[in-house]
Amino acid sequence: MAFKLDHIGLVVENIDKMKELFGTIGLDTGTEAIVNPLQKVSASFVNVGEKDDIYIEILEPASNDSPISKFLQNRGGGLHHLCFEVDNIEDAIKELNSKGFRMVVPPEDCRAYDENLKRRCQEPTKIAFFIVTKGVLIELIEKGG
Amino acid sequence: MAFKLDHIGLVVENIDKMKELFGTIGLDTGTEAIVNPLQKVSASFVNVGEKDDIYIEILEPASNDSPISKFLQNRGGGLHHLCFEVDNIEDAIKELNSKGFRMVVPPEDCRAYDENLKRRCQEPTKIAFFIVTKGVLIELIEKGG
Repeated sequence: MAFKLDHIGLVVENIDKMKELFGTIGLDTGTEAIVNPLQKVSASFVNVGEKDDIYIEILEPASNDSPISKFLQNRGGGLHHLCFEVDNIEDAIKELNSKGFRMVVPPEDCRAYDENLKRRCQEPTKIAFFIVTKGVLIELIEKGG
Repeated sequence: MAFKLDHIGLVVENIDKMKELFGTIGLDTGTEAIVNPLQKVSASFVNVGEKDDIYIEILEPASNDSPISKFLQNRGGGLHHLCFEVDNIEDAIKELNSKGFRMVVPPEDCRAYDENLKRRCQEPTKIAFFIVTKGVLIELIEKGG
């Protein structure tokens, strides 16, 4: 099982303000924010790699019952999760499950990721979330081909 | 001002357990943990880039009055800061200060970083910390040459 860092999730109250702030400190301002209706978040990706495509995913709740609303209320936002790309998400899930890690979001299609990053693919990207230890939320992503 | 992602700081209760856990999920287990007496933390770096050298810095308090002890007590640990490499830390600090961002740790030498990553350099690496917005702590690093 090979894990490759894809992005770091950052939860904020206002995505546009954070995009502007990133521009101010010399980073790029990210992709146009797109709503993911399944995950109930609005997201923008800021490429922070040099040779690798590694992103900060700026996230804002798209509704009050968004999975990240509680994190924003309780913590005031901040760094939220690490996302690793895997070749085969079903195999990776089986392996993490067999090792006793807790899946908190089962695998689902994530067309919003492809749309956001303008990926032309026939099969949608798939994602799933695990808590690997207290305070450490990990997303797995299998990019659509 | 060009920012390049260098590492993501992750605060944990027990650094050895986290290194072991990273091995279990298929990441490498990181460098040998080294204590940084200035910052009062023990740190290990796990390379998660493919072409870029981008690390997860696993951090454990080295004493009860460590700057990360409160974060561990209040939040139970988790993702803590993003570190960006800059060419000249003094210039970057001036620019961030002029834009009204709040420096929380002024620049200091960080020989522990060089020792940890076995960097052979005559001048030590320098670091500083800023809070750019609520919940977003950013470290600047100028690598020693």
